[in-house]
Amino acid sequence: MIIIGERINSTRPEIQAAIKNRNVSFILKEAASQLKAGADYIDVNCAQTSGDEVQDIDWVISVIQSEIKDVNICIDSPNYLAIDRALNIYKAKGRVIINSITGEEARIKKILPLIMNHKAKVIALTMDERGMPKTASDRFEIAKVIVERAKSDVFNPEDLYIDPLVRPISTEPTQVKEILNSIPLIKSLGVKTILGLSNVSFGLPNRSLLNRTFLSMAIQMGLDAAISDPLDKGIVSAITASNALLGLDEYCVDYIKAFRVGKL
Amino acid sequence: MIIIGERINSTRPEIQAAIKNRNVSFILKEAASQLKAGADYIDVNCAQTSGDEVQDIDWVISVIQSEIKDVNICIDSPNYLAIDRALNIYKAKGRVIINSITGEEARIKKILPLIMNHKAKVIALTMDERGMPKTASDRFEIAKVIVERAKSDVFNPEDLYIDPLVRPISTEPTQVKEILNSIPLIKSLGVKTILGLSNVSFGLPNRSLLNRTFLSMAIQMGLDAAISDPLDKGIVSAITASNALLGLDEYCVDYIKAFRVGKL
Repeated sequence: MIIIGERINSTRPEIQAAIKNRNVSFILKEAASQLKAGADYIDVNCAQTSGDEVQDIDWVISVIQSEIKDVNICIDSPNYLAIDRALNIYKAKGRVIINSITGEEARIKKILPLIMNHKAKVIALTMDERGMPKTASDRFEIAKVIVERAKSDVFNPEDLYIDPLVRPISTEPTQVKEILNSIPLIKSLGVKTILGLSNVSFGLPNRSLLNRTFLSMAIQMGLDAAISDPLDKGIVSAITASNALLGLDEYCVDYIKAFRVGKL
Repeated sequence: MIIIGERINSTRPEIQAAIKNRNVSFILKEAASQLKAGADYIDVNCAQTSGDEVQDIDWVISVIQSEIKDVNICIDSPNYLAIDRALNIYKAKGRVIINSITGEEARIKKILPLIMNHKAKVIALTMDERGMPKTASDRFEIAKVIVERAKSDVFNPEDLYIDPLVRPISTEPTQVKEILNSIPLIKSLGVKTILGLSNVSFGLPNRSLLNRTFLSMAIQMGLDAAISDPLDKGIVSAITASNALLGLDEYCVDYIKAFRVGKL
């Protein structure tokens, strides 16, 4: 299970302010604390800043790279120019992830060559011109189109993370089952699966409980990666316990180690 | 999801002492607190007391019934005579559950008529003369034999709770997957499924985390009932969150209510 730490996101007012004020220590603390808690990648989203997204993403990634060597970055932007800039300044050896493309032909066409030039991995949302999918099979059909398209560009399917689009249970109570059922379907295409967890609990109290319970169910279905907050102890506990339960942690070594250092 | 509260079990030294000393208030507190926390049934196990199991189970059930009207009891005994006595003194309207029978012919033959006379429900373990099952399909095969046998005695399959026998991950790391996969197979026979949760975490630290994570996975697979400790807040939280996630709690009404009264 790969964790992409979601905290450096400009929809959070604290991050928006830190980017605006070029607050180096705040950004570095947010990156370092997520890595310490277990994040494999740091998501960087500057789309909601009032300024220039291209300059802002350049600044954030440069700040993180200046202190943390070989950091894995997840470039989270809808903006082709911001993605291009981020890919160009990213210098660590770890391969980058682009968040995200969709099944919309125009968008795939523009971003795919950029991704291939930089040997980036990519998150693809199961969404196309017709909008949001409803069922597991809708999600599978869109994933098939994305995978076929990627293959025709000689893109390695193993570098594709397909996101079946989490919906809030408060407004769409039947969607979790569809999303969970879509995981093995999508994986049968030879690609990986990823979820943006926290959307599931939007509008409800004790969101951490819903997020971690959902995560355990998704790991059971074979989930490969999650975009979430690794500072939420419940998330790390759910992953560690799920791996131990499903026989993915031989002799429960990681589980016992995590318990000893107070991570559970 | 039905919760069978497991606390009045004579393998616990406090309970053993309370039974030996005929400590009415201790037994009543253990029963009442479990019901308040959300237990649907109170398991009563007197098999490990040093005295007379028949007398002891008679005393415990009488004590509980004297204070709590219409309490649902789960009679937990390997002893035909103790089960017979418990069924005879049980007077509440709620139907009783017998814990448990196995796939061993001699045992089925003796207990099934007793169960039918009292219109009891019954927990059946997927274990037979050959011992413990290893795979999901082993469990399914034993369940089939039990269901066929019960049907030939005109026993309603819906009153059968099949327990696929939880093993500790510390010694049998591949068993959880087999147990989870056995749940839909067994349910396809028209019966219900039940798990004794806490065995999964035997020998490991932070057992509550493993128990509740396992429970969420099992609910996702369709589990109908669990034998567990309802005073463990994590168990009640896992059930409430799982139901909300899987669309089993319309408008998340139960989830929000549980949050408001501090149960999550």
